[in-house]
Amino acid sequence: MPSYQDFIALNPNSLPERLGALPALRERVGSDPRTWSVREVGDGNLNLVFIVEGPQGSAIVKQALPYVRLVGDSWPLPLKRSFFEYHALTRQAARDPGMVPQIYHFDAEQAIIIMEFLSPHIILRRALIEGQELPKIAKDLGLFLARTLFRGSDLCLDTKLRKADLALFADNVALCDITESLVFSDPYYDAKLNRHTTPQLDGMVAELRADRDLKVAAQRLKHIFAATPETLLHGDFHTGSVMVTASETRVIDPEFAFYGPIAFDVGMLLANFWMSYFSQSGHEANAKRHSMRAYLLNVIIEIWQTFRDEFATLWHSERNGILYQRQLFEDQGDRLGAEQALDLVLQNIWVDMLGFAGVEMHRRILGLAHNADFETIENPDLRAKCEMKALKLGRHLAVNRSHIHSLQEINKLAQRLETESVF
Amino acid sequence: MPSYQDFIALNPNSLPERLGALPALRERVGSDPRTWSVREVGDGNLNLVFIVEGPQGSAIVKQALPYVRLVGDSWPLPLKRSFFEYHALTRQAARDPGMVPQIYHFDAEQAIIIMEFLSPHIILRRALIEGQELPKIAKDLGLFLARTLFRGSDLCLDTKLRKADLALFADNVALCDITESLVFSDPYYDAKLNRHTTPQLDGMVAELRADRDLKVAAQRLKHIFAATPETLLHGDFHTGSVMVTASETRVIDPEFAFYGPIAFDVGMLLANFWMSYFSQSGHEANAKRHSMRAYLLNVIIEIWQTFRDEFATLWHSERNGILYQRQLFEDQGDRLGAEQALDLVLQNIWVDMLGFAGVEMHRRILGLAHNADFETIENPDLRAKCEMKALKLGRHLAVNRSHIHSLQEINKLAQRLETESVF
Repeated sequence: MPSYQDFIALNPNSLPERLGALPALRERVGSDPRTWSVREVGDGNLNLVFIVEGPQGSAIVKQALPYVRLVGDSWPLPLKRSFFEYHALTRQAARDPGMVPQIYHFDAEQAIIIMEFLSPHIILRRALIEGQELPKIAKDLGLFLARTLFRGSDLCLDTKLRKADLALFADNVALCDITESLVFSDPYYDAKLNRHTTPQLDGMVAELRADRDLKVAAQRLKHIFAATPETLLHGDFHTGSVMVTASETRVIDPEFAFYGPIAFDVGMLLANFWMSYFSQSGHEANAKRHSMRAYLLNVIIEIWQTFRDEFATLWHSERNGILYQRQLFEDQGDRLGAEQALDLVLQNIWVDMLGFAGVEMHRRILGLAHNADFETIENPDLRAKCEMKALKLGRHLAVNRSHIHSLQEINKLAQRLETESVF
Repeated sequence: MPSYQDFIALNPNSLPERLGALPALRERVGSDPRTWSVREVGDGNLNLVFIVEGPQGSAIVKQALPYVRLVGDSWPLPLKRSFFEYHALTRQAARDPGMVPQIYHFDAEQAIIIMEFLSPHIILRRALIEGQELPKIAKDLGLFLARTLFRGSDLCLDTKLRKADLALFADNVALCDITESLVFSDPYYDAKLNRHTTPQLDGMVAELRADRDLKVAAQRLKHIFAATPETLLHGDFHTGSVMVTASETRVIDPEFAFYGPIAFDVGMLLANFWMSYFSQSGHEANAKRHSMRAYLLNVIIEIWQTFRDEFATLWHSERNGILYQRQLFEDQGDRLGAEQALDLVLQNIWVDMLGFAGVEMHRRILGLAHNADFETIENPDLRAKCEMKALKLGRHLAVNRSHIHSLQEINKLAQRLETESVF
């Protein structure tokens, strides 16, 4: 276990000197560190991120800081998140090859991961705000979800390995705490770090905090999140954790990785597409976004359909773990038994996925960590109007998740929230 | 972590010499080990158990063996189960004081726990086979379940501690594997270690193995067992893990301890009382057991009622964990919100508890590890008649667990299975 006692934060000037001897960087960037150019491009929330470029090529150097960068050293955050990110990246790379950045080097003591610089990729969230309709993301993300989540679970993995890995990631307490508090609890009471578009949303905030069914549902979801380590999650799987070009999709930043419920990554991702949907009318100044809205609702349906299809494929081809064993079904000639079990497993994922999507929409509007989809809408009245619709859909999903039949039905409701003022 | 490289099994002759210098034993048994008398009384399944007696008093010396004693060294079993048993005992002692044997000494490397010799206590299962109606067990066991299970969960414990402890116990893989295989899978296919009363039960066995709904239910329960580490379980909580006098109840042998679903220990225990109920007619040669049967059904109801009541009491007084936080309910003046959440939590425990009870009844009759309640019925026709009723109730509970309203209803069904031949 790294001690971090010699940890020193990098800066653009010190980086070539400190890392100039590493073959991993010399081979990819250039053998003379004096020829390297270094820029810090961290988005400012948690970590340092450097792009290192030179005559041979480029690389990303990501270093954790012992506190939340955005807030400062009053909010300490363990350097060990870098360890969890590294180990999550290696597992994701094995489970869905080519979907995460290639790792060149890991320095545990300095909390540094050196990896592939993705270019000309941009953050998916930014692309969606700009109105780009990317053709490949739904397929790529649906497959990534099914492959990483299925292959990390007792449906597939040797349970001895899963239990050991679960123990390894159980120490990612600080980042779990962020999710546990910021996603499931803070939005539903007057927590210190909350903020929202005020005064426009004040009435709605009061209503949600007085909503008993919603609060019980959110806490039940927290219970499921904290006590259902089915598989290794990405843990922070929103559109800001995806980088894209028209032809490539990559998933980054799994430092929240943790053993949790399969439904969590799926629900969190879909929620971010619904929020993108409701934010489009805040970005229509230059051009109408009718086609973009239709695209986003289709992406949601296609991600889930791809996830379901691939999950079923893996169920039939790689179900080698301790759960729903073939000995009990196929090996007894009972293929329908295996299908019945698959339907049960997918039904449970479906129900919980909708719940996680619901609370994710709330916390991005009412909690600490907002998202750019809404934040970049400068007019607060317009922003609040968009946010309000997402809050309403979120409440609907979190509370009614056991009774909802299909995404088509949810998307139809989203369209009515978008176009009718009666809700 | 112990290495076990110097492990040597004790025997009655070597014990005084090897352990004679330990203050823990000298103080309690006598300062001169030559005056000690040592008998080995292990029930023959897994471990060595010695009673050590001397002029001052007595003690139990329990030592693990690196294999399953019953089967021999062809079935290795890690010595580390002693480490898990010791740590489980210390946690149980803190969570429900006085209910587990007092620990005098733990030797990790030799896999030895030295503890209180409970006398004149006998194994509860034996007392029930003899037809003893013990007045205190229902209350004591209901309280023990509620206190250990609630206080070990995120409802109460600091989640950082629970996550660290979960990681510690995650290595108890071999004993979890026994539960995962023997309880949830083996009874439902032609597994090598299975045995049952044959040919009397052959038809029923074939019927259960062809029962798709049952197999899917059993596997769903396995899924819940393996992926819901809500709290530290005893893990093997049957009537053979309880020692009693008329006035005292003690819980022993938590070497299967593991973080799992709250419902597991509860369901497993109740199943053993239903099995005792159905076994009574096999022990009626000398005297009718009408009163004993009524007593057992009442014990089941009283354990559950005590568990529910104490769980609710702790919910109101010790709900200091990350789940269903007061900030969202009581602190906002919403006491009914906390009650709604309590009902939801208890409802989930109820449903899963019934399922675990169902499969436990199957595996004790169809799997490897049978229980003395039925095994001591020598006439195979009579034994099979008793077992058949338990198998039927088990199937009913495992498959219909979401639709069953009360224990009264289940007990009524048990009575009909006992007295009517039409089922």
